Amino acid sequence: MKILAITGGVGGAKLALGLAKVLSPDEVAFAVNTGDDFEHLGLHISPDIDSLTYALAEENNAELGWGREGETWQFIETLESLGGETWFRLGDKDMALHIRRTGLLEEGQSLTEATAAITNAMGIEHEVIPMTNDPVRTFVHTQDGPLAFQHYFVRDRCEPAVSGFEFQGIENATLNPRITEWVEGADGVVICPSNPYVSVDPLLKLKGFTDALEKLPVIAVSPIVGGMAIKGPAAKMMAELAVPASAPAVAAHYEGLIDGFVVDETDRNQADEIKIPTIVVNTIMVTLEDRVQLARDVLGFLRTFRG
Amino acid sequence: MKILAITGGVGGAKLALGLAKVLSPDEVAFAVNTGDDFEHLGLHISPDIDSLTYALAEENNAELGWGREGETWQFIETLESLGGETWFRLGDKDMALHIRRTGLLEEGQSLTEATAAITNAMGIEHEVIPMTNDPVRTFVHTQDGPLAFQHYFVRDRCEPAVSGFEFQGIENATLNPRITEWVEGADGVVICPSNPYVSVDPLLKLKGFTDALEKLPVIAVSPIVGGMAIKGPAAKMMAELAVPASAPAVAAHYEGLIDGFVVDETDRNQADEIKIPTIVVNTIMVTLEDRVQLARDVLGFLRTFRG
Repeated sequence: MKILAITGGVGGAKLALGLAKVLSPDEVAFAVNTGDDFEHLGLHISPDIDSLTYALAEENNAELGWGREGETWQFIETLESLGGETWFRLGDKDMALHIRRTGLLEEGQSLTEATAAITNAMGIEHEVIPMTNDPVRTFVHTQDGPLAFQHYFVRDRCEPAVSGFEFQGIENATLNPRITEWVEGADGVVICPSNPYVSVDPLLKLKGFTDALEKLPVIAVSPIVGGMAIKGPAAKMMAELAVPASAPAVAAHYEGLIDGFVVDETDRNQADEIKIPTIVVNTIMVTLEDRVQLARDVLGFLRTFRG
Repeated sequence: MKILAITGGVGGAKLALGLAKVLSPDEVAFAVNTGDDFEHLGLHISPDIDSLTYALAEENNAELGWGREGETWQFIETLESLGGETWFRLGDKDMALHIRRTGLLEEGQSLTEATAAITNAMGIEHEVIPMTNDPVRTFVHTQDGPLAFQHYFVRDRCEPAVSGFEFQGIENATLNPRITEWVEGADGVVICPSNPYVSVDPLLKLKGFTDALEKLPVIAVSPIVGGMAIKGPAAKMMAELAVPASAPAVAAHYEGLIDGFVVDETDRNQADEIKIPTIVVNTIMVTLEDRVQLARDVLGFLRTFRG
């Protein structure tokens, strides 16, 4: 079985690790959102690639829920004392990744090549594929005007009410050819439990991406459980967009693209509202076993769609 | 009394702190070598400005003899694991200074302005004046060909034999106007015990610098004590250049510029070889009291030259 997994931030990365535990590097690759990328303090920062990288290396900071394990904060505390910008909390170890990536990009490597150099150095065998090598920048339209994604997400702690989204550069961005190649021989696609609007939609809106998936079964795992997002602003965004913050609403968001949907046991009573095949399993991933079990459940479900 | 102190790295910075303890910000300012500056990992690094900054803030790392007090190394160790360049040991706290400076320069500030922002943030009241805002880059000519200064000094640990020096960009560099202004009302100049070839000569070779000093008494403190440099490659360089590694040879190097010389008690028996007025005092600065005492000795000596 060969699948492409689509993932955004920390939530999606949990299932990604489960999939990487169950499938070999020949069987699963990860297509990652880069709309959250930004330039900050002279560094090229790719938060979603990093969340996935740390997760796959089993170096993610479980205590914080973001960033790298065993992190320290001497850099950012000193930067604060020097009057620098510190709303984006860069750890001392994390800084090394950003400096390394920025250096590789400066040398002329593509984001894909730089990502491979870093994931290889961290012992990750599975392929982490940025959705594009071109700059795409997510802006969140809010009551306060458009905000660059990290300004909305980190600096303003998702407080402004959302009215829409914009992916600057998406029209001119080329879908990563590695994704096209991978999808050609694939058996299916899994959309990990990531934010539909800001983690998954940037990929779906890339020219040629949904076309490439057309012949494949696509299933998505709901990031909404019991009306709430396990992590991040998905539920808050849905409410502000006057969409019910529910698993069926996520399924409806992906209508026309997905062939199957996965909801949590908490939402068992809403499964009937979803008009496509749906399974009800535990999607709340606390332990590594939870990640692996959900990966197995999702793959088992995906197999039922094979011709 | 108003003086200009010329300083390079860690050795010079020790006397600079002594002078700052004895003289107010209206009475002493520091002109600093920038020939050691370099671009590394996307950062603008100014090692001599930083040595002085950490010394004046009393944040210098006494244990290492360079860098910042209370330093940690998570960044550089992680960078190593990611395959990055790690020969220049950037501490986690030190990184904050380089990121901050680089950011201020990117915003369009001059090196002088960026330096002031950082020294002010660190509570330093004395003025730290980069010799120029223009790029000057010291190259050391060696048996292995020309080496950028930090490659010679840090990466290659001063091992290659030296045959000469080159200060790229010096012809087109403008002497910092703050130095010209400061010197106008000054009573004298102190050359701190820094390397004559790579710390002090870049300043002296800047167009207009020695002319600006012409009417002022200038005294230098020998960085060579007992035939050895207290710190750094000065003595090794002298030997390789077929110059005796001695205090009188340093005085001879500054011939025509300096009016007085300061040698350590260790070299009392060589003081007679020096043809200009010379005092013999303790120049080995271990404690803060040593720094202050040498500052007092130097200033007392300088007073004897006043018209």
